[in-house]
Amino acid sequence: MALKVALLGCGVVGSQVVRLLNEQSRELAERIGTPLEIGGIAVRRLDRARGTGVDPDLLTTDAMGLVTRDDIDLVVEVIGGIEPARSLILAAIQKGKSVVTANKALLAEDGATIHAAAREAGVDVYYEASVAGAIPLLRPLRDSLAGDRVNRVLGIVNGTTNYILDRMDSLGAGFTESLEEAQALGYAEADPTADVEGFDAAAKAAILARLAFHTPVTAADVHREGITEVSAADIASAKAMGCVVKLLAICQRSDDGSSIGVRVHPVMLPREHPLASVKGAYNAVFVEAESAGQLMFYGAGAGGVPTASAVLGDLVAVARNRLARTFVADGRADAKLPVHPMGETITSYHVALDVADRPGVLAGVAKVFAANGVSIKHVRQEGRGDDAQLVLVSHTAPDAALARTVEQLRNHEDVRAVASVMRVETFDNER
Amino acid sequence: MALKVALLGCGVVGSQVVRLLNEQSRELAERIGTPLEIGGIAVRRLDRARGTGVDPDLLTTDAMGLVTRDDIDLVVEVIGGIEPARSLILAAIQKGKSVVTANKALLAEDGATIHAAAREAGVDVYYEASVAGAIPLLRPLRDSLAGDRVNRVLGIVNGTTNYILDRMDSLGAGFTESLEEAQALGYAEADPTADVEGFDAAAKAAILARLAFHTPVTAADVHREGITEVSAADIASAKAMGCVVKLLAICQRSDDGSSIGVRVHPVMLPREHPLASVKGAYNAVFVEAESAGQLMFYGAGAGGVPTASAVLGDLVAVARNRLARTFVADGRADAKLPVHPMGETITSYHVALDVADRPGVLAGVAKVFAANGVSIKHVRQEGRGDDAQLVLVSHTAPDAALARTVEQLRNHEDVRAVASVMRVETFDNER
Repeated sequence: MALKVALLGCGVVGSQVVRLLNEQSRELAERIGTPLEIGGIAVRRLDRARGTGVDPDLLTTDAMGLVTRDDIDLVVEVIGGIEPARSLILAAIQKGKSVVTANKALLAEDGATIHAAAREAGVDVYYEASVAGAIPLLRPLRDSLAGDRVNRVLGIVNGTTNYILDRMDSLGAGFTESLEEAQALGYAEADPTADVEGFDAAAKAAILARLAFHTPVTAADVHREGITEVSAADIASAKAMGCVVKLLAICQRSDDGSSIGVRVHPVMLPREHPLASVKGAYNAVFVEAESAGQLMFYGAGAGGVPTASAVLGDLVAVARNRLARTFVADGRADAKLPVHPMGETITSYHVALDVADRPGVLAGVAKVFAANGVSIKHVRQEGRGDDAQLVLVSHTAPDAALARTVEQLRNHEDVRAVASVMRVETFDNER
Repeated sequence: MALKVALLGCGVVGSQVVRLLNEQSRELAERIGTPLEIGGIAVRRLDRARGTGVDPDLLTTDAMGLVTRDDIDLVVEVIGGIEPARSLILAAIQKGKSVVTANKALLAEDGATIHAAAREAGVDVYYEASVAGAIPLLRPLRDSLAGDRVNRVLGIVNGTTNYILDRMDSLGAGFTESLEEAQALGYAEADPTADVEGFDAAAKAAILARLAFHTPVTAADVHREGITEVSAADIASAKAMGCVVKLLAICQRSDDGSSIGVRVHPVMLPREHPLASVKGAYNAVFVEAESAGQLMFYGAGAGGVPTASAVLGDLVAVARNRLARTFVADGRADAKLPVHPMGETITSYHVALDVADRPGVLAGVAKVFAANGVSIKHVRQEGRGDDAQLVLVSHTAPDAALARTVEQLRNHEDVRAVASVMRVETFDNER
């Protein structure tokens, strides 16, 4: 007896899910133990052209009617956004259907409701495609590291911003022209806000943090800074330090383990770090776990076909669970660690200051750091005379103290301008 | 009611499994839904010092008695080697116990027997720790890519050889001194044969190939060349081409999809490839799948603690399956693709020849390539006079034709010596 799949959405990802379900029906049936059959496809408009292989008789605009139909076993949601996706998924769950979704926004905003409903109903909600596209990442975090303790997750989880920063790094180009190039090539949308302001990465950070720390985290808990302020000067300053600039989603347990910090912002990263070599629109997530040590997962973070591949992997798993009359209770958030504010997060800053080249300037600047309880890790002076620049990297300190230091430097009489400020991420025993 | 675990072996990995089971008992119980309890630990000698936390009352030398005990639910095998591991695992399976093993040698030699017995008995055999230590790799290959089609797997799966090659690359050192340094630092064993001759990597290649292509593959099917012949000249020649030398396990579907090739040998790899930046004793596996595109999994490939982490991840999974009265039928080999011999594998060669610097030499050398049906991709001459070297890279051709070409060049009147021969791995649309 075939398992019937309802598909919500038939756009870039949905049409590829249909194609793969058709093309690989025999292999999928073997791996599951029974065939999968598409029972219906919910779309907004019936008159739109669909990919080949999409049977028009399966199309319907009544998504709610489809997901609650008695003969449907599994629901795949690839419409995105909060509503109507949430209502449809909850209705499907209450009717005992298992769900596969790629919806990062919904899971980041209201994953707790979805997971609780699934546990209650005894069904699966799988969502590998919601973070880092085709990269098998969430299930390894949830399952393979189930016997381990994760301390930090660092992710390049937005391909658009990685493409832009990579162009800025390799060509010395500015943000605006790199964004325009990304838009021309289809790597960035006409309205790039969700990507370049870090909203997309913040939703993924929330999902990663919950999985890594078993703690409820929503997008609102995530400190978020985008890349629109990253300048060619920042990139050049990073290069001079042997670093590269990346937009990272960082989920980190505090040193005493009593709280977590979740944030998205540009970071200077040593060039020899595995994340530094992630080029173009690729994604990668670096995990530091107590026993497993350092792990990295790398691959295509977006695109219809890779995302559909992740959806199919999930579909095989939920179909097998269904046949075995079992399910995986996900959304475990029983550790309930508080999320500390950004100001309490321990970070380290790189600061480049345009200064007058005269004795006493460093002493004055160092005094500002000291007054805020921040110690300086290294300092170097570049140029002479009116072009003199003082480049400082701090030791780690609470982010609020570092931010205050920079604020006071902006108004310092010896400082003509703050040319570049960016957080530096440190590794291993560097801290 | 607790699930009872029998542990076979209490060495580097086993003692860490005990430690983690003790330290994380509460977290593990939560994730599984019931506590895990160590029912017994089989060791060869009772009088040996064990790590703290190993209860002496649990030790026994009667491994067979332990795994067949009625109260044992799950068996963890970390003794390695073919026997007695195989007999113990088969006895446990026949008694209805699920098994977690890190035993690459056994799975590569006789995985078919183990998997068939497990299917028959309706129990799990999980073996994440057998390839690439702590890196969650086998389950993503098996589960997350279940709806995809894998075309090629390239793995750095032996940390010892990667460490040695990395030292040769970064310091210009020779093989022998790099091996000695690796031995002094504990990265290589006193008898390094299994690592440097590629036996360890070949066993892992067999396991990866079966998972990737659903085809029976044993270590005997794997073409194997180690790194003992890799010279400082090869490394320098690779550098001149913008390449790095890595020992790779390569599992590849033929272009027409009708057969597979599985091989372990040194490879020149472009420096910008993600595998090229895998340093020291780290492991990484690069996967090319039809829909998912390029994926890479990176992490610690060995060591007691990382390997124990992988064992615990598996233990959580099999424990949950047991509670749900389900199991995962692994060892699927129904595609039954033939493994083609190395001579039929399509590869590409880098060849550096010491030649006399006089007109006509290139013509003579090119004629040898042409006679074997091999076309030349690029050629450059280095040096003049008696130091003249001709460096050629071929287009792809059957490996036998390339090997024959090199053999004939060795005896060619214009060639004073073949200074370096190595396969070059190509990517994307390069071929």
